[in-house]
Amino acid sequence: MGFKETKIVDQVLNEAIKYIKHVPRVVDSTITEALNKYLAEDAVAKFDVPGFNRSAVDGYAVRSVDTFGASSTNPITLRVIGFMSVGDDPSKYSLNPGEAVEISTGAPLPINADAVVMYEDTRRAGDYVEVLRPVPPMGNVSRRGEDVKANEVMYRKGMKILPWDLGVLASMGIYRVKVFSPRVAIISTGNELVEVTDVLSKGPPPGRVVNSSRFVIEGLLKSLGCEPVYLGIVGDYEERIAETIDNALRDYDAVITTGGVSVGKVDYTIKAVMRLKPEYINHGLSIRPGKPNSIAVVNGKPIFMLSGFPVAAATGFDVLVRPILLHMMGATDDPRPIVRGILTRRVSTPVNTRSFVRVRVYLGRDGKVYVDPLALTGSGVLSTLVRGNGILIVPENREGFDEGDEVEVTLIRPLFVEGS
Amino acid sequence: MGFKETKIVDQVLNEAIKYIKHVPRVVDSTITEALNKYLAEDAVAKFDVPGFNRSAVDGYAVRSVDTFGASSTNPITLRVIGFMSVGDDPSKYSLNPGEAVEISTGAPLPINADAVVMYEDTRRAGDYVEVLRPVPPMGNVSRRGEDVKANEVMYRKGMKILPWDLGVLASMGIYRVKVFSPRVAIISTGNELVEVTDVLSKGPPPGRVVNSSRFVIEGLLKSLGCEPVYLGIVGDYEERIAETIDNALRDYDAVITTGGVSVGKVDYTIKAVMRLKPEYINHGLSIRPGKPNSIAVVNGKPIFMLSGFPVAAATGFDVLVRPILLHMMGATDDPRPIVRGILTRRVSTPVNTRSFVRVRVYLGRDGKVYVDPLALTGSGVLSTLVRGNGILIVPENREGFDEGDEVEVTLIRPLFVEGS
Repeated sequence: MGFKETKIVDQVLNEAIKYIKHVPRVVDSTITEALNKYLAEDAVAKFDVPGFNRSAVDGYAVRSVDTFGASSTNPITLRVIGFMSVGDDPSKYSLNPGEAVEISTGAPLPINADAVVMYEDTRRAGDYVEVLRPVPPMGNVSRRGEDVKANEVMYRKGMKILPWDLGVLASMGIYRVKVFSPRVAIISTGNELVEVTDVLSKGPPPGRVVNSSRFVIEGLLKSLGCEPVYLGIVGDYEERIAETIDNALRDYDAVITTGGVSVGKVDYTIKAVMRLKPEYINHGLSIRPGKPNSIAVVNGKPIFMLSGFPVAAATGFDVLVRPILLHMMGATDDPRPIVRGILTRRVSTPVNTRSFVRVRVYLGRDGKVYVDPLALTGSGVLSTLVRGNGILIVPENREGFDEGDEVEVTLIRPLFVEGS
Repeated sequence: MGFKETKIVDQVLNEAIKYIKHVPRVVDSTITEALNKYLAEDAVAKFDVPGFNRSAVDGYAVRSVDTFGASSTNPITLRVIGFMSVGDDPSKYSLNPGEAVEISTGAPLPINADAVVMYEDTRRAGDYVEVLRPVPPMGNVSRRGEDVKANEVMYRKGMKILPWDLGVLASMGIYRVKVFSPRVAIISTGNELVEVTDVLSKGPPPGRVVNSSRFVIEGLLKSLGCEPVYLGIVGDYEERIAETIDNALRDYDAVITTGGVSVGKVDYTIKAVMRLKPEYINHGLSIRPGKPNSIAVVNGKPIFMLSGFPVAAATGFDVLVRPILLHMMGATDDPRPIVRGILTRRVSTPVNTRSFVRVRVYLGRDGKVYVDPLALTGSGVLSTLVRGNGILIVPENREGFDEGDEVEVTLIRPLFVEGS
């Protein structure tokens, strides 16, 4: 029993990507709906930002020539003809030689003004202001187009839209954008599965388990800006699985199955996909948990065949589904929170395998960060995902880490604090 | 000109929190809808997981007593009476002394079986199997309730629901949960503002600017599991602002305003809130950008008065709004991605001020990480949020960092790579 051969993750990704030709669905959405999605086109500024020369300080808008030679011992006196507020039209005032307009930060320069003297460099006297220092042309002015120029490409295709980007896009005159919104079918296989809505408080019948992987995958897909479409539970029937995947490939950008990827009697899904004559298929990955996670490409679209065990499926999502869907959108993955800490117990892992060890990371009373490997590491053990707050990744070229080693851990929840 | 006094962020948070009594809205939602929201109740397992004793390996289910004394030189032969698949009912078979049932990982133990012998420790011969090694009671068995016990509190109120939690909750028999879903009103003030939908390609009229802060705040609120409700642009009229905030306080869990928080002629919003007789108010924070960001508490609910400049407003959201809304939900903030790098230029910041310096972080050709402070640091400069990918926070007790210093930076986008 066991896989004839399991491949290193990076090799499988490199191979599979060569066969993926499909471009996922693009939708035209408002910027608000586009939050956390990936741009399917470059975003180009429709106008200059700011759209006019505006004051960068509170003070007096002037003709800079009028201030030349001014000093505190020899101030130049200008007549104040009004006050320019934020939102006023620049044509509200027009300066003649010897005149100034009081102005707020962000307000437009009046006609004929080309600089602003800060309050600190002036002395007010009734309707007049004494300028104590000269100001050069465009001094204290934010020029039109200084922030963003019309027709400038501000965002490249594939960039993820973050909260502040909504403001940048609106400032550039963009209210609707084209974003990727891949629709991904989820097919659960397994005679043991029941829907949570069918069992609620009383629990599943003897021998059966709740289909939980489906929800994990839905959540992971949503977090990646994709639209999950759950197609239900298909029993362990090779022909029905093949038919369901075949139909899903027609309608969706990618297909994710769970279950039926072990070896021997229980590889229904692998056999079902073989019937679809894939351009590429790989059964078995050198990772733990998640060795049975597999991938195929049919008609240029990926089929991800994940383990029936939810934790193994989540690991498979992370190493296979996520990078490939990002690749299809021309996107790069987000940075992840990493923390360094001291390992409290030895961790042993198989060589030539990338191991994902669930850990509890805490700040000790001594102010140091400690990393506690969780005892239960079976791929079916969901509760470690709650009790733990981090993942220690042991790379292929190591067989683990020793007690006392300083290790890097990906944090999935806040640090625990000892004694609190 | 200037604030009489600006306070340190932590002091303001500690003071304001004392006056906040309001508990935000709770909704009953499906687990899928609850993704990225914060639990408003403990989540308690409805049944044992697993719900039955199941095999942890592929092999033969046996009565452990039947295997005592077995060895490779002296194997014990059992009669194989059938095959137990995942999803089968445990009552499918019942073992008599001397019998075994072939079994898959995850399948339930048949009646009278109390252990599983791995394939590796057996030799099959037709309808019989030779056991080469004894197995203790419960050997290679995942016991009922081993992962989660019925009535166990798995999640505490205030915990954020992450993708894999959806699977854990479903496994526990939970399909609907109570989560916080605070409704937060957004009120934009400023005569200069126009809606992006009103100006699109042609750009705002002279002197006017697009209301971009509104979108930044909507995005930040959504990312925090809150529901933003945009109430539109109110001009710089103290009375109308007061009335709008007063109405919003009745209907929503919190209010966020932008604009009208500078000093002197342009503190409409501060004056408007003073009319509402706040239990607490603080005008001005020791941060840069974002000094005018302010907070008040009226009837136990927070009013966040943010700067009219989008970048300063985003900083105010991060230091004021985010921690207080999390506090109201009993939640802790997520860990953030931090990277260490070498500063390429000196950064000077005012003392007693927490400064947020936008930076460009990149991986140099020499394999080292470099941190490049962006030249434009005006609070109105949105484009630095696109050109940069990180924030360098200079704490109150420093006046900056020197060129060549190793600094910690919060990453908001992936690292750039030099030369690519």
